[in-house]
Formats: sequence, structure tokens, C-alpha cells
Amino acid sequence: MAIAYPHFFGSEKAKNLKPSLMVTPTPSPVILSQDELKKIAAYKAVEFVESGMVLGLGTGSTAKHAIDRIAELLRIGQLKNIVGIPTSSITHEQAVSLGIPLSDLNAHPILDLAIDGADEVDSQMNLVKGRGGSLLREKMVEAASKKFIVIVDESKLVSHLGGTGLAMPVEIVPFCWEFTLRRLEMLFIEAGCVGKLRVVGESGEPYVSDNGNYIIDLYFKSDMGDLKEASDAILRLAGVVEHGMFLDMATTVIVAGKLGVFVTNK
Amino acid sequence: MAIAYPHFFGSEKAKNLKPSLMVTPTPSPVILSQDELKKIAAYKAVEFVESGMVLGLGTGSTAKHAIDRIAELLRIGQLKNIVGIPTSSITHEQAVSLGIPLSDLNAHPILDLAIDGADEVDSQMNLVKGRGGSLLREKMVEAASKKFIVIVDESKLVSHLGGTGLAMPVEIVPFCWEFTLRRLEMLFIEAGCVGKLRVVGESGEPYVSDNGNYIIDLYFKSDMGDLKEASDAILRLAGVVEHGMFLDMATTVIVAGKLGVFVTNK
Repeated sequence: MAIAYPHFFGSEKAKNLKPSLMVTPTPSPVILSQDELKKIAAYKAVEFVESGMVLGLGTGSTAKHAIDRIAELLRIGQLKNIVGIPTSSITHEQAVSLGIPLSDLNAHPILDLAIDGADEVDSQMNLVKGRGGSLLREKMVEAASKKFIVIVDESKLVSHLGGTGLAMPVEIVPFCWEFTLRRLEMLFIEAGCVGKLRVVGESGEPYVSDNGNYIIDLYFKSDMGDLKEASDAILRLAGVVEHGMFLDMATTVIVAGKLGVFVTNK
Repeated sequence: MAIAYPHFFGSEKAKNLKPSLMVTPTPSPVILSQDELKKIAAYKAVEFVESGMVLGLGTGSTAKHAIDRIAELLRIGQLKNIVGIPTSSITHEQAVSLGIPLSDLNAHPILDLAIDGADEVDSQMNLVKGRGGSLLREKMVEAASKKFIVIVDESKLVSHLGGTGLAMPVEIVPFCWEFTLRRLEMLFIEAGCVGKLRVVGESGEPYVSDNGNYIIDLYFKSDMGDLKEASDAILRLAGVVEHGMFLDMATTVIVAGKLGVFVTNK
């Protein structure tokens, strides 16, 4: 079988992973939009949802499709007794408007399953998340889930995190944020790291997270080296609340692309 | 010479430390109050301050004496061109009222010296801080200082952190704080860890830090094991902002006690 996404599944790291790779290619002659691919991945993930589950509900355009689908299955009676734990105030609002029963981590400290999108996925199922700004609550909920399904379109697959050249977000306290930004850049000076305060639209006003914090978006020229070391180094900086690398958390990745839908289990 | 505070300076760990132990005992026949001891330690620390320095100004009853003394020396012209970086809004107010010129970490990312109290000091000069609630800003400022002098009365010396049976504070985001509290307790279940949300007086309302966060006070029945591992484990919990262990940061500890003033350099 030819390998789809060779930069992802064909890498040396992926070969060493030994995942139970369950590939279900369903090639389509129709050219699908990115949003249609997201929807396909989302619907596939919802096949793993069973009645009675406590479910982590992700945030963003891909997770939104999954939540819509869960609500639909609840409406037609195919799913019952679902309790949703939203990962952001936006997802909370969406789920309420769709009539999905909700609770929180205090009442349900262990979740059966979480479903969420990601900004980047590497061959070890490590993720970058949080370009939508909800990385902290997402990480709290998804770290508490027995299973965590990540749903992405093929554009999110990378050979190493930061590899899309897009941001790796870090949530920080607003106090002396410029100082914390410089300290973050210094941590990764060899990787050509540049940090930027996330702002709202054209206003120049800082973006404020659900937790009242700011987001620094880090951009890397080369890879940041050992990811666990990078993670600990970031977290050790006083002023940092959380970062957008989700290491060793995803248990399943569902990729929708032009070549079909691929489901990879860890 | 007999060893003062044998549980502290006489421990096996301290013997392995090889610090340049500079002990200057000045025994006093008068019984001094705890506040007088704090003042003696604070004044001793200010002897290390030189004109032109960028100075981290600590928070709490002991640091307050140091700030008073710095202001006094500025007033009489014995110190000049000091720039203070306060570690809390309370210290900011005190320094402004005393006429000490102030700045912040953005303008001065590297400080010459910081002076602050501590709640506990072990024989390796590791600290517990933050019972006053300013641990995050204190850590940001003191981590940026070339030298960091810790000033304590003798009651703060412990054989291991947590050894006073008093709190080790952890600053967390308010979102689902009960969940984070349970996760912190679970991390140290073998050390008999119990966590409590810090509240304001009798009101039962959560204490809110300068950064809009809550504080969980952790109490340990036995020692928490390897401190660096404990630190990283706490920081890896999503929802944790910072903790009150200051490891490998102090460069000088000044202890005032019934037996005199002891200055220990790393």
C-alpha cells in the first residue's frame, strides 16, 4: 500500500511509533472544501461516542461540526444520557443552544472521551492547539479524558511541531507581558523564535483569554528540539500559565483529506 | 565553633552544599521580638545595596523593613540613583509613599539585587514563599535578579520544605478550581497532601491574587520528595499558574535569631 501523507505517516519517527494504524481510505472523485473535510473527520469521531458518556466538547471550526452531529444524534434518539463538558465559553453557548446537557470538571473529574480539533499534528500524535485561544481549558478537559480523539483536515499534518510556520501559542499573565515575551524568545533563540502578542482585529488591543490572560504567539524558524524539555522550560518561566503543545495526550487522530479518512490509534 | 541551628546548618545536606559560610554571630543579651529580628535581618541586607542599583523590592513584613531602610538611606543621601522594581501592588504603594523611584521588568529585565522575606528556608537555600499571596510577581522579579538576598528570622529555618506544617501555596486559575485542588492533592497523595482554597478573613470569599487568580494552600504530612520533580509536576498541571517553591534562586540567606545574625552565601 502506498503511504498517504509520507511526510507524516512515512517519517522515521512514525515508523518507530508502532501505532495500531487503522487506515480506511475512501477516495472521493469530488473535490471537497476544507470545511467539508473537517466535517467528515468530525462525523467519523462521533461514531466513537456511546450513550451514557461524559464527553469533552472541543472548541473551533472542526469541533463545532462534531458538536452539531452529537446534538443531531441526541435529537433523533440514537444517543442518550450524554453529559458534555465544554472547553470554552463559545462551545458552552453552542451546546446550550443545541440542548446538549452540560456539566463541568468539578462534577465530572474523569471524562470518557473528548473530541477536539488541532492546529498541528505530528507523527507522534503530539499537537499544537490554541490558535482559537482556548488552550488552557481545552488542556484541562482533555488531560482528564480517558480517550481523546483529535479531528483534523490533512493541512494540519506536520513533520514537526511549529512546522507550518504558524503560531505556537503561550498563555501568560498580563503583568509585564513584554518581559515574559522576551524571556520566551530567549528560551528558543537557537530555533530563531519570534514572539508576538495576540491582538484583537485591527484594534491593537490585547486578546484576552477566558481566564483573563494574554496570548503570546511563538514562531519558529527551525524545530524547537526535544518537545518535553521545551514544554518544561516554558512552564518553568514565572508568568507563563500554559502553552499550546499537547504532548502524549491524543489517543486517536482522524485525518480527512483528498485521499480519504484515516484513523490512527495510539 | 558550635553550630547554630543544627537542624538547618548542621544537616547532611548543608554539609554537602559547600557554601562559603560567612557567619557573623553578634549575640545579644536582650530578648528580641520576632519583628525586631526581622528588622535586624532586613537592615543587614540593605548593607549590600549600592548606589545606582536596580533593586527588586520584596513583599511582606520583613521586606517592608528593608524598604523603609532603603528609603531612609536615600533621604540622607547615603544611597543614590536607586531604581526599585516592586513585587506587589502593596509594595508599590509603600515605595511610592516613601519616594523610592520605581520602574518595572519591561524597562529593567535584569536586576542587580532583590531583597525579600520567605516563609521557609531549607539547608540548600530553597524557599517556600507566597503565604502573603504575591508569589508570582516575586518569582518573576527575583528570577531576573543577579543576586537575591533572603531575609528571615530564625523561625523560618526548616530541615525540609513544608517542614513547618504550614502552607505551600499554589496560584491557579479560578476556572474549576475544585478540580485543580483535587489534582494537586493526588500528585502528593503519598506525602499526605491536603489542599485548601485560600479565603479572605471570615467571609469565605476566595482570596484573589494581583493577577486575578486563586491560591490553593497545600499542607504535607511528610516531605514531598525530590523538589525539582515536585516543581515540574505541579507546573505541568493545566490550571496551575505558579507555585511557592523558589528552588535554586537565593544567593544569600540572612537569618536573625537569638544567637545573632548569620549570613550564608551560596
